[in-house]
Amino acid sequence: MADKKLVEAITSMEEDFAQWYTDVVKKAELIDYTSVKGCMVIKPAGYAIWELIQQQLDAMFKATGVQNAYLPMFIPESLLQKEKDHVEGFAPEVAWVTHGGLAPLQERLCVRPTSETLFCDYYKNVIQSYRDLPQLLNQWCSVVRWEKETRPFLRSREFLWQEGHTAHATAEDAEERTILMLNVYADFLENVLAIPVVKGRKTDKEKFAGAVATYTVEALMHDGKALQSGTSHNFGDGFAQAFGIQYTDKDNKLKHVHQTSWGMTTRLIGAVIMVHGDNSGLVLPPKVAPTQVVIIPIQQKKEGVLDKAFEMKDMLSNFRVKVDDTDKSPGWKFSEQEMRGIPLRVEVGPKDIEAGKCVICRRDTREKIEVSFDELEAKVAETLDKMQVEMLERARAHREEHTYVAKDMDELRSIFAEKTGFVKAMWCEDQACEDQIKEELSVTSRCMPFEQETLSETCVCCGKPAKKMVYWGKAY
Amino acid sequence: MADKKLVEAITSMEEDFAQWYTDVVKKAELIDYTSVKGCMVIKPAGYAIWELIQQQLDAMFKATGVQNAYLPMFIPESLLQKEKDHVEGFAPEVAWVTHGGLAPLQERLCVRPTSETLFCDYYKNVIQSYRDLPQLLNQWCSVVRWEKETRPFLRSREFLWQEGHTAHATAEDAEERTILMLNVYADFLENVLAIPVVKGRKTDKEKFAGAVATYTVEALMHDGKALQSGTSHNFGDGFAQAFGIQYTDKDNKLKHVHQTSWGMTTRLIGAVIMVHGDNSGLVLPPKVAPTQVVIIPIQQKKEGVLDKAFEMKDMLSNFRVKVDDTDKSPGWKFSEQEMRGIPLRVEVGPKDIEAGKCVICRRDTREKIEVSFDELEAKVAETLDKMQVEMLERARAHREEHTYVAKDMDELRSIFAEKTGFVKAMWCEDQACEDQIKEELSVTSRCMPFEQETLSETCVCCGKPAKKMVYWGKAY
Repeated sequence: MADKKLVEAITSMEEDFAQWYTDVVKKAELIDYTSVKGCMVIKPAGYAIWELIQQQLDAMFKATGVQNAYLPMFIPESLLQKEKDHVEGFAPEVAWVTHGGLAPLQERLCVRPTSETLFCDYYKNVIQSYRDLPQLLNQWCSVVRWEKETRPFLRSREFLWQEGHTAHATAEDAEERTILMLNVYADFLENVLAIPVVKGRKTDKEKFAGAVATYTVEALMHDGKALQSGTSHNFGDGFAQAFGIQYTDKDNKLKHVHQTSWGMTTRLIGAVIMVHGDNSGLVLPPKVAPTQVVIIPIQQKKEGVLDKAFEMKDMLSNFRVKVDDTDKSPGWKFSEQEMRGIPLRVEVGPKDIEAGKCVICRRDTREKIEVSFDELEAKVAETLDKMQVEMLERARAHREEHTYVAKDMDELRSIFAEKTGFVKAMWCEDQACEDQIKEELSVTSRCMPFEQETLSETCVCCGKPAKKMVYWGKAY
Repeated sequence: MADKKLVEAITSMEEDFAQWYTDVVKKAELIDYTSVKGCMVIKPAGYAIWELIQQQLDAMFKATGVQNAYLPMFIPESLLQKEKDHVEGFAPEVAWVTHGGLAPLQERLCVRPTSETLFCDYYKNVIQSYRDLPQLLNQWCSVVRWEKETRPFLRSREFLWQEGHTAHATAEDAEERTILMLNVYADFLENVLAIPVVKGRKTDKEKFAGAVATYTVEALMHDGKALQSGTSHNFGDGFAQAFGIQYTDKDNKLKHVHQTSWGMTTRLIGAVIMVHGDNSGLVLPPKVAPTQVVIIPIQQKKEGVLDKAFEMKDMLSNFRVKVDDTDKSPGWKFSEQEMRGIPLRVEVGPKDIEAGKCVICRRDTREKIEVSFDELEAKVAETLDKMQVEMLERARAHREEHTYVAKDMDELRSIFAEKTGFVKAMWCEDQACEDQIKEELSVTSRCMPFEQETLSETCVCCGKPAKKMVYWGKAY
């Protein structure tokens, strides 16, 4: 009873999912609000997740030949304006620096909302010959977009991300890289964050400002809403034309390069919360859990208990492990472990020590496993692996249960009236139909998945012959 | 001959040290200029050094209990103004955001030049009780200072750094942390970057805006100029008073916290260049060399040569190693290895293979060592370790040779007229003397070193009784 009072309750997700999300973000100490509207503090517990995301994603990038670099955070207005579609897409939501020190600037500078224009300006300088290609660069930085509505991790005026920018000799090379990086994202989401994705192409209406084609990995949150979790863009030679990025090919002819860009952001942390969390708080996949195992001593003042706990910590040195030896009660410590989403809790008290064993408790299923000390390390390794795999399976099953099919507008209307999830529907590729669905049902086309199906022969909206299957959903 | 032409010469450091520096920075492909005045591109070869600095310094921070976090890049003007000395120090050199999207902001925001004010605003929220102390946070980010004169790595309008900010219960705890982090910096500079430092305290004139005490690690560059390489500040409770950061102590009384901050920047890369570089280019200490060993095959088209080179690469998998199998000549490859400062080059050709050996060549001394294949790994490890140690020793010897003593103004004048280096001199602690020396000789007090000496009984300037020994120098 006393323990229950100690840990303040969070709103249940069934009652109010948005409030549940906000409560978890605050109570798990991931985020704090600041005096700067729309900008957050990412607290140590949140930033440690981002560090694990960075390390693993960065290694995957480097394995494909990508190198990191750093470009300035400021873009002169004239540079931003060089590519017409791009500036139209971003100008309405950038922050402008007009004064440096005590003097007004001759030309105002925007704080980068994304860095295509800066990379183009750089590539123009460093690319001369086919020998200089491909250029495969990435940077980890923060960007600014002056959003009106903001939510922790999901949408903020400043956020952290990585942005990859590549330049290639041919259109084929650029397309290959665009798809390669989309596959890296899908691999990362599924095998590190335990989040299943639908891979596909955005419609022209939803593609990135200045892109020929935008590819996306779409994930379904626990409440049935979709989250665009990473995008990879093929720019063709549009930016190269606008910026004059040319190279001399082997045949001695001047040609324009073909470019790509691809990005993932701190919204991934939001995705982890909304896919895996439950009414006790955060549930972290072991691969991105800053603490994977917390050892909680029971009756820790009894002789030998704390010594044993620290001995067990040493036995588990292959994992990110800590002992909670604070003077809080075990019940409070259990609740805290659950709120923070630590994958495994190991309980050990005087009776366990006498019997030569302890108890492992999984955060996701709450399954308890009795383990003898000599098999502790092996069992922790096995359980973390199993949990990582089963979290993905559970999320996939949830997505399948919340994926529907609509063959005409009546079906589409009734599904979105009653349910929240992905809806698959056929499309004639006419933007008028896409516009109509978006306006009437307040949903957006998520993507044209690579795994196409023929649900019917006709467009869900106009009844004319269908060309593509599209995923629809309400999105964050 | 042909090889010599292939590699463009760099200006010699004896002829023009500033031009030598700029040439190395460009030719070693560390930096590129941009359309944004005073902002640079850190190219992959430069950024990879920064990544190694980050990894090793971050691990040292974490070993002292520090955690990473991320605070916004924008500071509302009213927040910046809360601490009087601090705003006076920074307001003249900040960039101001006045528009967000299409609308003017109600309150303008400065792009952080440093984040004391934001951390104070945050600590005010999260600190209530003595149980919440200490707070030991750090962030890796970029900051902006609107400098008029800029130089790659040494001074730019935007630069990358880490800034640690801590809050403590007592003045003693804060002072202890300030010195602890200064010692971490000194350890890092000496044992990772192979740069010897003088540790000491800044005079009141040179201390950080808002600090009670600023401590510094000062290094001497090859040209005899000083570089402030890291600073650690004790703020006392000044910021806590201005921001109202209070906690309830064990005795149930409300008290103000005591704070510190400490930072190191990408100027460390400039220090590495200027301490270790030579007329063939960069010389990187093994611990921060992105490539530690380059294997250069001789007559690589002969059967078995490339196979052997890659076999050797596999033997050296404990190091950061690559094979240069491009179609450039060996001479070109040697020059490139030297320009980029790769610590070891391993040469292997058909005759070596026949004899079961290869040649290791050290970048710093150019010493060549014949090594049989079976001792290759051990010899590479040994040589890298030795090089790391000897680079520090050489830099220390250079600093000793360029450290002078002045007992009166005539001596001080004549030393600075003829030489560039550190000059040790006694001081009465009166700022008038410090001002006079600075104005007359265009040098600044670097620090009052922890290792004090009594060079004479009187102030170098006024002849009154001396209280402190001070290091003076021309600084970057």
